[in-house]
Amino acid sequence: MRDISVFSGSAHPELAAEVCAHLGVPLSPTRLSRFANDCLEVQLQANCRERDVFLVQPLVRPVQEHLVELLLMCDAARGASAGRITVVMPHYSYARSDKKDAPRISLGGRLVADLMAAAGVHRVLTMTLHSPQVHGFFSMPVDHLHAHRELAAHFRRYDLTRTTVVSPDLGNAKEAAAFARMIGAQVAAGAKQRYADDRVSISAVIGEVAGRDVIVLDDEIAKGSTVLELLDRLRELEPRSIRVACTHGLFADGALKRLSEQSDVLEIVCTNTVPVPAEEHTDKLRILSIAPALAEAVRRIHNGESVSALFDAARGQ
Amino acid sequence: MRDISVFSGSAHPELAAEVCAHLGVPLSPTRLSRFANDCLEVQLQANCRERDVFLVQPLVRPVQEHLVELLLMCDAARGASAGRITVVMPHYSYARSDKKDAPRISLGGRLVADLMAAAGVHRVLTMTLHSPQVHGFFSMPVDHLHAHRELAAHFRRYDLTRTTVVSPDLGNAKEAAAFARMIGAQVAAGAKQRYADDRVSISAVIGEVAGRDVIVLDDEIAKGSTVLELLDRLRELEPRSIRVACTHGLFADGALKRLSEQSDVLEIVCTNTVPVPAEEHTDKLRILSIAPALAEAVRRIHNGESVSALFDAARGQ
Amino acid sequence: MRDISVFSGSAHPELAAEVCAHLGVPLSPTRLSRFANDCLEVQLQANCRERDVFLVQPLVRPVQEHLVELLLMCDAARGASAGRITVVMPHYSYARSDKKDAPRISLGGRLVADLMAAAGVHRVLTMTLHSPQVHGFFSMPVDHLHAHRELAAHFRRYDLTRTTVVSPDLGNAKEAAAFARMIGAQVAAGAKQRYADDRVSISAVIGEVAGRDVIVLDDEIAKGSTVLELLDRLRELEPRSIRVACTHGLFADGALKRLSEQSDVLEIVCTNTVPVPAEEHTDKLRILSIAPALAEAVRRIHNGESVSALFDAARGQ
Amino acid sequence: MRDISVFSGSAHPELAAEVCAHLGVPLSPTRLSRFANDCLEVQLQANCRERDVFLVQPLVRPVQEHLVELLLMCDAARGASAGRITVVMPHYSYARSDKKDAPRISLGGRLVADLMAAAGVHRVLTMTLHSPQVHGFFSMPVDHLHAHRELAAHFRRYDLTRTTVVSPDLGNAKEAAAFARMIGAQVAAGAKQRYADDRVSISAVIGEVAGRDVIVLDDEIAKGSTVLELLDRLRELEPRSIRVACTHGLFADGALKRLSEQSDVLEIVCTNTVPVPAEEHTDKLRILSIAPALAEAVRRIHNGESVSALFDAARGQ
Amino acid sequence: MRDISVFSGSAHPELAAEVCAHLGVPLSPTRLSRFANDCLEVQLQANCRERDVFLVQPLVRPVQEHLVELLLMCDAARGASAGRITVVMPHYSYARSDKKDAPRISLGGRLVADLMAAAGVHRVLTMTLHSPQVHGFFSMPVDHLHAHRELAAHFRRYDLTRTTVVSPDLGNAKEAAAFARMIGAQVAAGAKQRYADDRVSISAVIGEVAGRDVIVLDDEIAKGSTVLELLDRLRELEPRSIRVACTHGLFADGALKRLSEQSDVLEIVCTNTVPVPAEEHTDKLRILSIAPALAEAVRRIHNGESVSALFDAARGQ
Amino acid sequence: MRDISVFSGSAHPELAAEVCAHLGVPLSPTRLSRFANDCLEVQLQANCRERDVFLVQPLVRPVQEHLVELLLMCDAARGASAGRITVVMPHYSYARSDKKDAPRISLGGRLVADLMAAAGVHRVLTMTLHSPQVHGFFSMPVDHLHAHRELAAHFRRYDLTRTTVVSPDLGNAKEAAAFARMIGAQVAAGAKQRYADDRVSISAVIGEVAGRDVIVLDDEIAKGSTVLELLDRLRELEPRSIRVACTHGLFADGALKRLSEQSDVLEIVCTNTVPVPAEEHTDKLRILSIAPALAEAVRRIHNGESVSALFDAARGQ
Repeated sequence: MRDISVFSGSAHPELAAEVCAHLGVPLSPTRLSRFANDCLEVQLQANCRERDVFLVQPLVRPVQEHLVELLLMCDAARGASAGRITVVMPHYSYARSDKKDAPRISLGGRLVADLMAAAGVHRVLTMTLHSPQVHGFFSMPVDHLHAHRELAAHFRRYDLTRTTVVSPDLGNAKEAAAFARMIGAQVAAGAKQRYADDRVSISAVIGEVAGRDVIVLDDEIAKGSTVLELLDRLRELEPRSIRVACTHGLFADGALKRLSEQSDVLEIVCTNTVPVPAEEHTDKLRILSIAPALAEAVRRIHNGESVSALFDAARGQ
Repeated sequence: MRDISVFSGSAHPELAAEVCAHLGVPLSPTRLSRFANDCLEVQLQANCRERDVFLVQPLVRPVQEHLVELLLMCDAARGASAGRITVVMPHYSYARSDKKDAPRISLGGRLVADLMAAAGVHRVLTMTLHSPQVHGFFSMPVDHLHAHRELAAHFRRYDLTRTTVVSPDLGNAKEAAAFARMIGAQVAAGAKQRYADDRVSISAVIGEVAGRDVIVLDDEIAKGSTVLELLDRLRELEPRSIRVACTHGLFADGALKRLSEQSDVLEIVCTNTVPVPAEEHTDKLRILSIAPALAEAVRRIHNGESVSALFDAARGQ
Repeated sequence: MRDISVFSGSAHPELAAEVCAHLGVPLSPTRLSRFANDCLEVQLQANCRERDVFLVQPLVRPVQEHLVELLLMCDAARGASAGRITVVMPHYSYARSDKKDAPRISLGGRLVADLMAAAGVHRVLTMTLHSPQVHGFFSMPVDHLHAHRELAAHFRRYDLTRTTVVSPDLGNAKEAAAFARMIGAQVAAGAKQRYADDRVSISAVIGEVAGRDVIVLDDEIAKGSTVLELLDRLRELEPRSIRVACTHGLFADGALKRLSEQSDVLEIVCTNTVPVPAEEHTDKLRILSIAPALAEAVRRIHNGESVSALFDAARGQ
Repeated sequence: MRDISVFSGSAHPELAAEVCAHLGVPLSPTRLSRFANDCLEVQLQANCRERDVFLVQPLVRPVQEHLVELLLMCDAARGASAGRITVVMPHYSYARSDKKDAPRISLGGRLVADLMAAAGVHRVLTMTLHSPQVHGFFSMPVDHLHAHRELAAHFRRYDLTRTTVVSPDLGNAKEAAAFARMIGAQVAAGAKQRYADDRVSISAVIGEVAGRDVIVLDDEIAKGSTVLELLDRLRELEPRSIRVACTHGLFADGALKRLSEQSDVLEIVCTNTVPVPAEEHTDKLRILSIAPALAEAVRRIHNGESVSALFDAARGQ
Repeated sequence: MRDISVFSGSAHPELAAEVCAHLGVPLSPTRLSRFANDCLEVQLQANCRERDVFLVQPLVRPVQEHLVELLLMCDAARGASAGRITVVMPHYSYARSDKKDAPRISLGGRLVADLMAAAGVHRVLTMTLHSPQVHGFFSMPVDHLHAHRELAAHFRRYDLTRTTVVSPDLGNAKEAAAFARMIGAQVAAGAKQRYADDRVSISAVIGEVAGRDVIVLDDEIAKGSTVLELLDRLRELEPRSIRVACTHGLFADGALKRLSEQSDVLEIVCTNTVPVPAEEHTDKLRILSIAPALAEAVRRIHNGESVSALFDAARGQ
Repeated sequence: MRDISVFSGSAHPELAAEVCAHLGVPLSPTRLSRFANDCLEVQLQANCRERDVFLVQPLVRPVQEHLVELLLMCDAARGASAGRITVVMPHYSYARSDKKDAPRISLGGRLVADLMAAAGVHRVLTMTLHSPQVHGFFSMPVDHLHAHRELAAHFRRYDLTRTTVVSPDLGNAKEAAAFARMIGAQVAAGAKQRYADDRVSISAVIGEVAGRDVIVLDDEIAKGSTVLELLDRLRELEPRSIRVACTHGLFADGALKRLSEQSDVLEIVCTNTVPVPAEEHTDKLRILSIAPALAEAVRRIHNGESVSALFDAARGQ
């Protein structure tokens, strides 16, 4: 395999640039143009022929624009005789659509994986999928990283002797437990009853919380309703302190502002898989960069070295 | 094949309703929801099992939203065991992206056709593709209608004895010639030199225009720059009257207003393949409905009758 | 679609016969022969041409034999010009292999779904998948039933006023909660920490159990270690009574005998998705038949009627 | 990618040999045998394993023989474990069949592209497709060269100050205009009305021709009827001189003889994408070799260098 | 499935007409046109939409022309929305190319089967494949008939009490044995050593031939060299009489004339899977029609009745 | 292509180890685990990323277990980003299922080849397929070796001047003839009439046997019934000596013991494509190793050298 070429879509060029800086390769330019009829056209503005092409594009808001742009980038790379096409998609938002819980609904998590195959993608590098089974939706090899290592490094600066990691959801409790083991903490979980996509009601918190330093951990925070409701339950149990952490900080509909306004929340920690507009940043926000991890994974993929070694380390095993 | 079920995406529900009215079948409801992370989910809210499912969605602005929504509708119909899935897409905007005129660009016209196949589409019903070769981009059967019959019916109300149909573009002149034959008129064409997607310069008009009733005919009008420039050239030749007609009235960036402000343009005629917002309508605008033609094509597709007969009639042959 | 033909593999012919009895159609004979070199050959001994073929085969022990036999049956039906091939697979054992929790492991749940596609399967009818995401592993339509309706009918014969449904696992607690709602009971869950496929250790039970009538509910019971350990935890909490229920009664390695020997377990309830050898039956075992539900689903699939209606009813919605 | 291996089918071994000479690699031998029942069998008589295999075969008369031979060559290369298979097809005759202008007709341009994919072709190198959209019929990467550079080099030996390039067809006028710009000439076009594949009638010539040195330029000349009819129209306009040029000199049914007999045609220029039998050569015929361009493209494809650079140069940009 | 439509390619329209006469359906017209550049275009001149389309085309000389024509017919039928496409190909000449007996050769038997799949064929009806394994080269269902029933009916008019059926080849002896059982005769075989496609040398005849009425039976006769050489060996053994029979009478290079000139050969019997030009017919030639068998198979395929019943009868079982 | 990695399934680890020893590369470890529900999971315990992966697994008893294990190994290698996956399958038992000799039967030889493609196999290395046409069942490249070279080396230690190689079956006689030429012997064949898979009756032996040293040669010996019956016929012809040889020594149902008990059989020779349990070995058994040939083929496949050269040598040409 010949040299690496990295291109970025318009979803998160800062992250792509940061990955390239860590890799020590230039970020090749991409031209996105829009026909008068609103169709997109992509031009990759550097030679792709027989090269190991990486396309950086998390599927963030506006998701449909970024998805079609990504598929066009893949098509352009394929038509330009790329040797291999790897999509670097640190946030795969369509993983939320992973089961048929109502009749005749779309299963976007699988469909979008199939669209990528149709557009010529050879492999995918992603981070913290909403459920681990989504890995099996892809027909091509997937390298699935976690941000636990980055989060652990951040929290280890604190005294963790009385810490409890709290998952807002029973379904996600296994990940919280793994992270708790990694930092030597206890684990607890909210017993969430979901009524609709954005309205939830939490009835109980299972595990020891009173008088402890709580880290609320979720894979992603969108509207933040789940976390806010969990906070109400937690307060009844009188923890000593509260911090909130997640991998994907989507922060829709003013969620970041609302969370930051909770006076007992000391800190809101996320990674840069999703860009947070500078004007929305708050004093409590801490954004950890996963660019070094992505760059290392890209380097190993290119060189044919084990990524699972990296992955295992990231899981603290 | 069991009964017809017609669903509409959010691109043009009025057209879908009109097609259903002509067919005498109800428009089945579709629920489009948006996750907090901006992903879409579609639910088809009527039984699809073994039914002959038609999904109405022209790929109009916002194109990417409507495209992904359409693909999710196909996925939902497939998962719901539809007997056959036909996409009724009267405007296929990605047909504009039909050739590689620069290195390493995407070829959206082919890619989107492949995405539809990946999403489970069995056949496509479309109208006036930007170039006839785009038909060959689809791996599934395509019924390709033209709106010439509707346009001819409209213009036959006028005295056509001194009429010249003018194509703004040499490349499109064959279609203009076919329409001219259909209404017994002459044909002429602009010799267009395209510099970019939305900036053109017309150097000459080929054919007899002076003192004649001109119908400027294009497949679509987006920003309208081509037509406006053609009008400048035509005026130098002193035609007796000018009308403008097209199948797809995209009218981007105030094009409809600008065209309507041309005092010597008597009329701007288009069809309803693309919805024109009511607030943008002008006195000179005439919108012809292609719903009867689509409904008749759907009926024939469902019953296994020849659509080419309809198509041939539409071409006046 | 022409008439139904139902064939059974060798995994569970009694269930196939029962489904056929409910459908009122004969079970067509299948001949399974084994070459001297241990290869299998299948002959479907009734005309399949253009017929709506259903192949009944849960993937039960010996799984590999039954899987290859099923794939050969599909191949034979395809080669014999079946109009449509539906696999009726009430237990999909490979759904256990649904995520990559170690490097370089196989993902059997997805692979076997792909093998079925390669063998010509058009659709799948299954029951209580180990995780709902496994639905998305299949590229063909899947009808996914649950046995909650059958289980509820069984337990409604008891006084349920002080009942708690207990999930042995946090991850499965959503299903237990749905079932609890269906019968008007409370829900609780064990906080399981899995160390290996068959060795678990349960640290706590979350929810109200003391003095209540407990129904331990899991999707499947294989070696029974999880349930046995949960029973130890439950006893410390002094419930009034204990019953055990599951959809898939695999009962490996003497699990049924061991569970039956627990003096405080009043009843062990499962369905017949998996055959339990008569010689292993115990006094406490109750096997509920899901043949009526499968037969009704087959009838609806054949007739193009909604199966989700059946499914929704089964979920008590 | 290991070494290059070049094989030639029986369509144009001279061109293959010339390409190999420019590349400095031997032309590997191919054995074509014919069964007594008229079926073909191909043997590639040099090791292909893991090599970068190029198969040279323009689809020229007898087209069906050469097409099937080419597909068998691809199959043989695939079965022999070729590392990559590139078809070098300087004339893709089936590009003529690029649209559905009548009901229920074949679309050979797309079908043959799909047959190549089915036979294992990884990429295609071709020249001057009949319409640029045909590029999109191929599912594999296509390098599409033009012969403008070769034609321009030829004509630059003349005084071009009063030259007009004339396209016989409106539809092809864009290519003529591009070539005219390249050599600093004007452009004109015939307004052709096609009635059938080989009978045309030209009604007018658009552009300045009187007293000028005319180069009639088409992508291909088959029966030559179009050009002959154009010549009649041109003579009425009294040009100073007439030359005829095309990329693909098919010259069917004595076309070359007929054109050469036109006393006012000074020269007939084509390239060697299509072999012209020596016995049909005339004094006026000039055959330009595109072997250097093909060889350079093969070299770049093999080395992973940009071919579009070559392509752009060829277009004079 | 709606009505049958039968189209014929140009390979054997007489057979197609005869099949249609037996079916009582009209033979729908096909238009085959040839571009000036030698490419073919097919138009099916009757509605195919949702119909059960049968395309009759044995792959006979000129094979490549007939193969590409057939693939274009399939493409046209697919594009015209045929409900199902069945190729009726009574002679599959490419079955001769069924193994790799030299390095880097094409495997035409498999490739052509794959090309048919790529062109949209849903099923194949064929007759007496050169080897039974060729059935497995097709990915779609194949109905494979034999002409034994027709041949047996012919020979039963003679006294068969002292008859020996002789296979020219050990490899084909099983078919000869099956036919011998069918007519109550003995079997013998030549021990053929093949040196090349058309030059063979037979060293011995195994079985009782002296004084018996010999029927030499092969699947096909092309150049006839094998049979002629076998006749030399047989004469040494002094049979009482000699007749020659085959399914596919290809008769290349004057084979029919040469065989007819053998004074001791009483009769040469073949079927009409392959057309024999009227001017080549000889007094000794008897052509049996398999049109009734094909028509009956088409009828059963269309109606979803068992074809294997017909097949079994044809094998005398 | 980067380095070789060789993994073995559980079918024949000794052979894999021997191949690795000849190659001078380590045998990488594989972990096979079985869920409590009898499903298998495979973990390849060495880095596969971008490596040239070889998976050694003959499809021997228990065939279904070994087949599914192999498919899971392929899936694991694909998911682990193997650069290329070659299955080394010296015995392909499903090649026995190569034709449809009864209605509605499975065609395992083709199906299993398709399953391998679905599981991600890129190429296959196999030995002595039951019929040469089975090669064409695979859609990926196949290297097909023979064990003639090893068998010839063994028998050349004897005086071969009066030797006859006897094929038990007419259908297999060509292979026997090729081997006879290789060692300068004569050839003979049994005229076998097969009634069922394991019951045969041989009516005659064709060729010179009396007073000669006979080598009975078959591709495989399973239950041995065919060979035993042939021995009865041979004895009537009074050969001077009898030896038995085959490539695949399956020896089912005590076949090896039964054959060894034939006092006039001097020797039973097979290769190690199939493992023969040590406790079943007899004094007369000679097992020849094909590990050197497999290792040499693997080496050539990896290095891109011709394997057909090896193959030709193996056939004595």
